[in-house]
Amino acid sequence: MSRTVYVLNGPNLNMLGKREPSIYGKKSLADIEADCRETGAELGLTIEFRQSNHEGELVDWIQEAGDKAAAIIINPGAYSHTSIAIHDAIRAAGLPVAEVHLSNIHARESFRHTSYVSPVAAGVICGFGPVVYTLALQALAARV
Amino acid sequence: MSRTVYVLNGPNLNMLGKREPSIYGKKSLADIEADCRETGAELGLTIEFRQSNHEGELVDWIQEAGDKAAAIIINPGAYSHTSIAIHDAIRAAGLPVAEVHLSNIHARESFRHTSYVSPVAAGVICGFGPVVYTLALQALAARV
Amino acid sequence: MSRTVYVLNGPNLNMLGKREPSIYGKKSLADIEADCRETGAELGLTIEFRQSNHEGELVDWIQEAGDKAAAIIINPGAYSHTSIAIHDAIRAAGLPVAEVHLSNIHARESFRHTSYVSPVAAGVICGFGPVVYTLALQALAARV
Amino acid sequence: MSRTVYVLNGPNLNMLGKREPSIYGKKSLADIEADCRETGAELGLTIEFRQSNHEGELVDWIQEAGDKAAAIIINPGAYSHTSIAIHDAIRAAGLPVAEVHLSNIHARESFRHTSYVSPVAAGVICGFGPVVYTLALQALAARV
Amino acid sequence: MSRTVYVLNGPNLNMLGKREPSIYGKKSLADIEADCRETGAELGLTIEFRQSNHEGELVDWIQEAGDKAAAIIINPGAYSHTSIAIHDAIRAAGLPVAEVHLSNIHARESFRHTSYVSPVAAGVICGFGPVVYTLALQALAARV
Amino acid sequence: MSRTVYVLNGPNLNMLGKREPSIYGKKSLADIEADCRETGAELGLTIEFRQSNHEGELVDWIQEAGDKAAAIIINPGAYSHTSIAIHDAIRAAGLPVAEVHLSNIHARESFRHTSYVSPVAAGVICGFGPVVYTLALQALAARV
Amino acid sequence: MSRTVYVLNGPNLNMLGKREPSIYGKKSLADIEADCRETGAELGLTIEFRQSNHEGELVDWIQEAGDKAAAIIINPGAYSHTSIAIHDAIRAAGLPVAEVHLSNIHARESFRHTSYVSPVAAGVICGFGPVVYTLALQALAARV
Amino acid sequence: MSRTVYVLNGPNLNMLGKREPSIYGKKSLADIEADCRETGAELGLTIEFRQSNHEGELVDWIQEAGDKAAAIIINPGAYSHTSIAIHDAIRAAGLPVAEVHLSNIHARESFRHTSYVSPVAAGVICGFGPVVYTLALQALAARV
Amino acid sequence: MSRTVYVLNGPNLNMLGKREPSIYGKKSLADIEADCRETGAELGLTIEFRQSNHEGELVDWIQEAGDKAAAIIINPGAYSHTSIAIHDAIRAAGLPVAEVHLSNIHARESFRHTSYVSPVAAGVICGFGPVVYTLALQALAARV
Amino acid sequence: MSRTVYVLNGPNLNMLGKREPSIYGKKSLADIEADCRETGAELGLTIEFRQSNHEGELVDWIQEAGDKAAAIIINPGAYSHTSIAIHDAIRAAGLPVAEVHLSNIHARESFRHTSYVSPVAAGVICGFGPVVYTLALQALAARV
Amino acid sequence: MSRTVYVLNGPNLNMLGKREPSIYGKKSLADIEADCRETGAELGLTIEFRQSNHEGELVDWIQEAGDKAAAIIINPGAYSHTSIAIHDAIRAAGLPVAEVHLSNIHARESFRHTSYVSPVAAGVICGFGPVVYTLALQALAARV
Amino acid sequence: MSRTVYVLNGPNLNMLGKREPSIYGKKSLADIEADCRETGAELGLTIEFRQSNHEGELVDWIQEAGDKAAAIIINPGAYSHTSIAIHDAIRAAGLPVAEVHLSNIHARESFRHTSYVSPVAAGVICGFGPVVYTLALQALAARV
Repeated sequence: MSRTVYVLNGPNLNMLGKREPSIYGKKSLADIEADCRETGAELGLTIEFRQSNHEGELVDWIQEAGDKAAAIIINPGAYSHTSIAIHDAIRAAGLPVAEVHLSNIHARESFRHTSYVSPVAAGVICGFGPVVYTLALQALAARV
Repeated sequence: MSRTVYVLNGPNLNMLGKREPSIYGKKSLADIEADCRETGAELGLTIEFRQSNHEGELVDWIQEAGDKAAAIIINPGAYSHTSIAIHDAIRAAGLPVAEVHLSNIHARESFRHTSYVSPVAAGVICGFGPVVYTLALQALAARV
Repeated sequence: MSRTVYVLNGPNLNMLGKREPSIYGKKSLADIEADCRETGAELGLTIEFRQSNHEGELVDWIQEAGDKAAAIIINPGAYSHTSIAIHDAIRAAGLPVAEVHLSNIHARESFRHTSYVSPVAAGVICGFGPVVYTLALQALAARV
Repeated sequence: MSRTVYVLNGPNLNMLGKREPSIYGKKSLADIEADCRETGAELGLTIEFRQSNHEGELVDWIQEAGDKAAAIIINPGAYSHTSIAIHDAIRAAGLPVAEVHLSNIHARESFRHTSYVSPVAAGVICGFGPVVYTLALQALAARV
Repeated sequence: MSRTVYVLNGPNLNMLGKREPSIYGKKSLADIEADCRETGAELGLTIEFRQSNHEGELVDWIQEAGDKAAAIIINPGAYSHTSIAIHDAIRAAGLPVAEVHLSNIHARESFRHTSYVSPVAAGVICGFGPVVYTLALQALAARV
Repeated sequence: MSRTVYVLNGPNLNMLGKREPSIYGKKSLADIEADCRETGAELGLTIEFRQSNHEGELVDWIQEAGDKAAAIIINPGAYSHTSIAIHDAIRAAGLPVAEVHLSNIHARESFRHTSYVSPVAAGVICGFGPVVYTLALQALAARV
Repeated sequence: MSRTVYVLNGPNLNMLGKREPSIYGKKSLADIEADCRETGAELGLTIEFRQSNHEGELVDWIQEAGDKAAAIIINPGAYSHTSIAIHDAIRAAGLPVAEVHLSNIHARESFRHTSYVSPVAAGVICGFGPVVYTLALQALAARV
Repeated sequence: MSRTVYVLNGPNLNMLGKREPSIYGKKSLADIEADCRETGAELGLTIEFRQSNHEGELVDWIQEAGDKAAAIIINPGAYSHTSIAIHDAIRAAGLPVAEVHLSNIHARESFRHTSYVSPVAAGVICGFGPVVYTLALQALAARV
Repeated sequence: MSRTVYVLNGPNLNMLGKREPSIYGKKSLADIEADCRETGAELGLTIEFRQSNHEGELVDWIQEAGDKAAAIIINPGAYSHTSIAIHDAIRAAGLPVAEVHLSNIHARESFRHTSYVSPVAAGVICGFGPVVYTLALQALAARV
Repeated sequence: MSRTVYVLNGPNLNMLGKREPSIYGKKSLADIEADCRETGAELGLTIEFRQSNHEGELVDWIQEAGDKAAAIIINPGAYSHTSIAIHDAIRAAGLPVAEVHLSNIHARESFRHTSYVSPVAAGVICGFGPVVYTLALQALAARV
Repeated sequence: MSRTVYVLNGPNLNMLGKREPSIYGKKSLADIEADCRETGAELGLTIEFRQSNHEGELVDWIQEAGDKAAAIIINPGAYSHTSIAIHDAIRAAGLPVAEVHLSNIHARESFRHTSYVSPVAAGVICGFGPVVYTLALQALAARV
Repeated sequence: MSRTVYVLNGPNLNMLGKREPSIYGKKSLADIEADCRETGAELGLTIEFRQSNHEGELVDWIQEAGDKAAAIIINPGAYSHTSIAIHDAIRAAGLPVAEVHLSNIHARESFRHTSYVSPVAAGVICGFGPVVYTLALQALAARV
């Protein structure tokens, strides 16, 4: 059985560490990928780490994960609040999914309070900064 | 005058038959394409059949249809409920458009009850399974 | 097993062809009945075709269909948007039901965008004019 | 050309004068009919005066008026606020229609503030008691 | 003074016991009528028991009860949620009214959570099955 | 006791007959004033006829009418939908008030469907053109 | 198996009979307890009767009832409309629950029209005064 | 500086493991406390673990934590969705707070989708079962 | 530094004492002015007391106060609920402002529950009758 | 007759002066109590001053005040916005009640803009800091 | 044909440059008038520049412009969001109208996001500071 | 420092001039690009002009502009109303942004009245046709 976890990142997360550090912190996405690989190694999990600004590409990857992965961690960024396509892809994939957000979306603008991804996720972690990724890996490890 | 009908399919429809058969049935998208070609042949219509997970690509194809086709059948999937870009593309194309859905979207979650595509479609057929495509071909045949 | 399909028409559909042809077309309800009988004959289905302006009479007929028919096609007209009684009758009848509308209700006033009938129908066809009836017969034929 | 005005009264108006005089006054519906006939005679108009508790019967009568009358006065009672069927019948009838209410519906419960009839009426008169009928006759006289 | 209680039943209640027993139970409407007559006899009350699918007929009967009865028990079925005409008829009748529902309407679809009848009823009993009728008779007995 | 009726006209009504005749007709406000004086003379009523674009001036005049007049006819124009100040002035004046509108406000934009004046008026007449003023005079004549 | 019914009363019900008799009647809560004990004795049921102004204490008691009782009657008072904690406690208790209200909450302020308790109750009785408690005991007796 | 973390649990969480295991799992609250103590020991943190069904008591404890603790983990249960008092207490305490839920509240009834606690929490973890507590300890460890 | 307080009164407050004493009491605006002057004298404050039915004039006066006064007391009457212009003028004036209402606006119609003035006021006093003016003077005295 | 005024304080007000002084100021609740006693003495009123974080305890005290006090001042804190139980207790107490808030709740989060207490209070004072308590004592003094 | 452009300014714009420079900038309205005259001269347009705090006066001026001007630039200030009277005046004037705002109203409070003026304007320019006036002159120049 | 302005165009703008000229005019996007280059040359600005139907590609380009450009002009087309991803990209880019629309979006369907881009733009220009691009260049020129 697969021991691979897809870690998918949505729009603008490639800018992490470069912009708005007061909201998103100083770590770059590459730093977070390194953290995930380290924790993944401890947990015996292989990490497939990707980022895209394209909703359709995220859908493609979730479908791919449905075939190749044991679980998905997704930070859908802005698409959390607008993408039913990602919602459908996750539901169809049939894998345990952890939704993560670096910032506490409930303490921001009201249009960020609702996520189409959450109802089809196994769980959601938001607001503690980059550690949400490795916490999600631990949460999923028991299910893989 | 063109006798071509573009049959465009939105996100996750490439997974048809593989996932959630209780909602979407057992037929694959290739099976549906075959049905469309068969019915198209009977009606003297050429079928151009495509699928994409990318909203922008669907917009591109609708624009292309505006130049090359006589009519469009579109199953916009999840983009039905979120895409004003597809709404605009259809309106600009100036062709008769049939919107189809395999499942009865009015019997599902409330966020699936509204479609931005419907107001600019000639008509809508939903909920009878794969037959919605060939019914749509018949509905459009009189207009081509 | 019954091979009869009840085709029930709601309020004001008896005026078809006489009034507002720009919205509803030139065919009368009798023309549509003839179309249904012709298609029904091809499909081996007996057609029971009726119209009423009375919500209660439509409920009576749906209950009757529950005993005598194999399927129902209903164009509930204005009662689509206001009648929970028809919703309940359909659910209780336990038959496959096709909801049809001559015009595209999603391109009209907002109070026509929601139908209490749709969630209990097998499927919905709207907006292509009188052909919606015979398309519905085809859609239901496979289920009878 | 017809000089007949249909004066149609909806549910519970047959109880006028018997119940809740503090809201609806002491005149019975027969008294109002007499007033209408008197004013109609002065204006050279024939009055066809009816009441029904049945939404469907009101629809039937509006359709009949479309064939036989020059104008309609309607006090739709409670159906003002719930009947799209009456709305559709009036629109199809193609006659000038005056909507009347004995009480000022805007000073009562909020569910009486909206009328489906108003958008398809030529005008609306409410709140002055039985005189609304004869005022409506005068308003329509110029159009017949 | 009258000792008669009108027990009025709205649309689809004639199907009781035949359809959807998981929601409405196995008793037929005739069984409930028998229960009412038995309890009525114990309480010295005469029972007038009726059912109609027609909103207008229910209005007619409520008006009749206003003249002949001491109290009304009404299970308005689907008309609970849509009929202002019944609301008005009850208010005009000036009798104590008990609204009953076999199922717990508050545990069902949201469009069943609001009843136009409730604000003009003396009280409401819902959700315990057929016993709601005889409980209502007891509740009203003290007021007759 | 006073036999004077104040006829007050709100913003933009001084433009009547000059602009948008398809909505408001060809009569000028002076024409309507003449009609009112003629009908007033027949009914034994003195007419005080004014127009202002200023909400505050309308409030001033309603207060003045409270001291000097027997009744008020008001066409509040756009202030119908936004002015609680006029609502309060009318309530304080303690006179019978008829609200009139030349056009049928219920057939126009949704922001014109609600009037703050209506709940404190004796009645409302809208949509028949300039005759609404003289109908209102008749409606009020019985109360003066 | 337990034959005990917990009868739980929420905030301000200890004031019954002392205040606002026009809404709540003249009986005190002690009178109601006596009625319950009498009816309970007839039905072979033991009554555990309590009142608290504290939401948390009501939750404690519902949990206790889950262990010791066969059924619960609850008049949640104002907590009906605001307490998800009581909703959760009832759902977890796994007992048949009757929700009662002395007044007809649907005829009062709109914030009293929705109850978080109703969706998890077996049934609801409101509006007939103190008899609602003994009616509830009868309704539950068949289930204990 | 304090190394104590208050772990506070809201209404009905004392029933964990006893009721509704399909939603909340089989672990009891004592099991979760043991998990927290074990993880706390690894992280050099002292655990103060409490549960109450009383909103006021949770407010008391949060105030106490403001004086004695370095951080708070709170599972507010049903009070998440209704308690502004807890919101205020947390804001006043001035400590990093992790909000946790065993179940994925976004996949449940809509009244559970909004939490008054979330906007004042450092972060939120929901939906992975009992592990949410120890994940929260890790998330907070870096901040203590 | 200025010791002048502008006391500004909105529409219809010139009618105080003359109309609707059950809502607004028997004191006239002149009586209230006298009270303000008396309390102002005790507090060493000069009172500039004005009333207007014109929104624009109130804006003018608030701008004037911004130049000449130390504080503003305003009873905006009906403009509380509709005037963003007054909101903007107050914000621009940069003075401490007390909003007062004679009646308790929260116990009246829902359209009086929201005030555009409140968010830019230092504080709000409503519902105790004329004493609200002198209480406001005391509240502002400490800030002048 | 009683000359006692209960001054009741809701959740988190015991933290006054310790936390968030930018919102609530530097005075402690004991300071405010001292102010109240001083002003009470001047006005010949006895002060009973209490604080609780428990909604139920506030209900208990309001009921107690109904028996022993002449008036109530209440700062319900967060329970203003969520407690119908306190609303009901105040209404039943039948005393003049002044609602006070230290901060201007209308200038804060939207969930603080509505108070269930306001409609049953004699008046409301908010936003001037601790002086709201002594202003309330003055406002009530005339009524005791 | 007229070459005059009316430049109309609504409430509080006379305070420009004096107050809240962080929102509205340092330029006074006189500075903006000078800019308009300079740009107008370049474009061969005569400028009629006015400001009023009175809604009615703005309506008067728009009506006047309808007779004398070729186009209107209006900064309606707060009346943008509340004045249907200005909306109606602009529609009746029949001139091309440019709506301008110094600040970006979409980045401010939600009650500033909707303008009744926008639907009847030719276009809208907001948020770049005083340059919006001269940009509007250029936009209109082509239409005069 | 960069003197380049990115001019980005969203979905369907490549169809300009070909379709729906009554809404969007006769100029093609190439014509507009030429206008921009001409005006850019006058202002000493380099123009980077692009169009895409893909939301993700627009996000890519905004990120690129963040590195290479001095300002952005964006006509987001249909994505204005649905794309939080573009909102986030603009905010992260940290450049002055002008949002433009050829048509007046406030005079069209209600779903076009709200733009996620506007709150993060420096300003918005809509409704004057192609000139909005060159006006935007002028508006931004002062800031580059």
